[in-house]
Amino acid sequence: MKIVIAPDSFKESLTALEVANAIETGFKRIFPNAEYVKLPMADGGEGTVQSLVDATQGRLIETEVTAPLGNQVKSFFGLSGDGKTAIIEMAAASGLHLVPMDKRNPCQTTSFGTGELIKQALDLGVQHIILGIGGSATNDGGAGMLQALGLRLLDKHGQSIGFGGAALSNLAEIQLVDLDPRLQHVQIEVACDVNNPLCGEYGASAIFGPQKGATPEMMKALDAALAHFAEIAERDCGKQIKDQPGAGAAGGMGGGLLLLPNVQLKAGVQIVLDNLKLAEQVKDADLVITGEGRMDAQSILGKTPIGVAHTAKQFNKPVIAIVGCLREDYEVVYEHGIDAVFPIIRKLGNLPTILNQGEQNLVSTAQNVARLLSLK
Amino acid sequence: MKIVIAPDSFKESLTALEVANAIETGFKRIFPNAEYVKLPMADGGEGTVQSLVDATQGRLIETEVTAPLGNQVKSFFGLSGDGKTAIIEMAAASGLHLVPMDKRNPCQTTSFGTGELIKQALDLGVQHIILGIGGSATNDGGAGMLQALGLRLLDKHGQSIGFGGAALSNLAEIQLVDLDPRLQHVQIEVACDVNNPLCGEYGASAIFGPQKGATPEMMKALDAALAHFAEIAERDCGKQIKDQPGAGAAGGMGGGLLLLPNVQLKAGVQIVLDNLKLAEQVKDADLVITGEGRMDAQSILGKTPIGVAHTAKQFNKPVIAIVGCLREDYEVVYEHGIDAVFPIIRKLGNLPTILNQGEQNLVSTAQNVARLLSLK
Repeated sequence: MKIVIAPDSFKESLTALEVANAIETGFKRIFPNAEYVKLPMADGGEGTVQSLVDATQGRLIETEVTAPLGNQVKSFFGLSGDGKTAIIEMAAASGLHLVPMDKRNPCQTTSFGTGELIKQALDLGVQHIILGIGGSATNDGGAGMLQALGLRLLDKHGQSIGFGGAALSNLAEIQLVDLDPRLQHVQIEVACDVNNPLCGEYGASAIFGPQKGATPEMMKALDAALAHFAEIAERDCGKQIKDQPGAGAAGGMGGGLLLLPNVQLKAGVQIVLDNLKLAEQVKDADLVITGEGRMDAQSILGKTPIGVAHTAKQFNKPVIAIVGCLREDYEVVYEHGIDAVFPIIRKLGNLPTILNQGEQNLVSTAQNVARLLSLK
Repeated sequence: MKIVIAPDSFKESLTALEVANAIETGFKRIFPNAEYVKLPMADGGEGTVQSLVDATQGRLIETEVTAPLGNQVKSFFGLSGDGKTAIIEMAAASGLHLVPMDKRNPCQTTSFGTGELIKQALDLGVQHIILGIGGSATNDGGAGMLQALGLRLLDKHGQSIGFGGAALSNLAEIQLVDLDPRLQHVQIEVACDVNNPLCGEYGASAIFGPQKGATPEMMKALDAALAHFAEIAERDCGKQIKDQPGAGAAGGMGGGLLLLPNVQLKAGVQIVLDNLKLAEQVKDADLVITGEGRMDAQSILGKTPIGVAHTAKQFNKPVIAIVGCLREDYEVVYEHGIDAVFPIIRKLGNLPTILNQGEQNLVSTAQNVARLLSLK
């Protein structure tokens, strides 16, 4: 019997690898001789670096970069076990959590630090970068990231426009001459789960600006600045980014990335599935087990377990989810390939206690699922 | 496929029948054509009347009896669907919850009300009484119950000794002449899960007195009073009750009951199992599902699911438990015939909310268990 264990992390409690290990422990008590394949999964959001590092026996690289407001901050990215792939979470350099609540101002915040992470990955000689762009504090169209990689964003006096979304309104010219030449030889997969365009009613500024601290006036100014940026970019870089689906992701980071060579925006979980070659492992499996911290109706919108289930169902394999908790509206997951779901809470307690018991509750639940499967 | 659903109640949330119905609802979504046999179970404690009434399509009979302190109180007992069996919980007439905290005094409390319930059952012409004796407020050796049924407990002046455990120290003579003659033709099964003797270090007063409000001095006096009662009983009734296992149950109620004809003390769950003929239903079943509000290491001490599991394992049937919550130490139940256990909590919440969600959580859990079983 071959069992593939491919869960997401349980946020605030266990990494995806820890989840997979606990499920394996529970199952092994009942099926000690089964073949277990553990693939710590992710959906391109928080935890993606850790999961892909764990899945490939890679390593975390700690570093320092420019935070959204220009100060230096500790950051990290991942390098796969074979050294060919870097995994970067934008939030680790340009995340909203790096800006104190009272200083949140998307007119000023820059994505420069994310560009620095990409540059450091290039220094390590990678051929491939996976970039998750969720959780950003920025609305600069990825301008800071591009500046870090050598793109010159100049005002009408030929001076750098500086940092932040508002500064883009002064953009007069883009010069490509200093763009890091190594980008020509690297594939960048961007985990991007929204289809918003760069500008307008559904654009970056209107939809995601407010949660980053934008007032209605800022929103309007930022939207105009991004539209201006897109216009200059089309003229100077020859690429139309304004209406590309996903260009509005992460304060326009999606659009800015499209100015680089060899960039593809994809569903985050699909990037992880493809890179971990889940399908190859699943095709001769007898059972697939997945999981996440909380399962609900939102889970069908690009979350890990559903991505895993879709892959498993291509090969008609049974899929069981073991989850931290389960909202009333979860049953829609049955229509998306999840055959059965088991929450792990065994008794009431306060949240810290429950989070602490995550591992033992997972082992217990996995054991009981295995016991049930062994009945027949 | 035949599925026997035989759970206990989930205390403070659902009756055993409601639990069985919810499990059936969840299972029917996946196995609509299976044969379902629902047996609401109990262990002789709280909920036993309701479960046996539900299981036999019987009815509850509401009445009034004498409370432990002598006042009148609303009470009830059950009558089986065929009218042949009465089901009585001692706590419904002589329960600790009927005595305000500040008036708890086992020297004074009487089991008279329980005797009245037995008498009312006899008035209905039953042939058989099932009597659960848990949760009592009394330490009177069942003297009050015996008085209600016509036994004369007299002091040296030939006067009734009155009510309460302390009064037994004045007992000089027991007269059987007025004992209700119908008792000769009725079988009484007493659900009794402790083996304590009437008196001494492990007797009723020493072990159960304190929780009923006895001080160390009261304990000593009550123990002496019960020993005196046993002595007079042996002389006048010809029955030795002092050292009988179970005589110390319910403040000596076990001992007092042994002075009646045709009384047997048994494990509570065994009485329920026998009367509901669980074995007959299980022997051609494919699956047995049980459950209780909380499963833990204590569950192996005479609780319903383990009783159900023991019966099921005589026929080598798989047994699944679905439970309200599950304590860390539960795993010992695996050694007692439970094959797999699933708690129903789906997410954290306060206790009232969780108790309210009992039914939907049960349906959901049962459905997922059924889904898992349907995989193979």
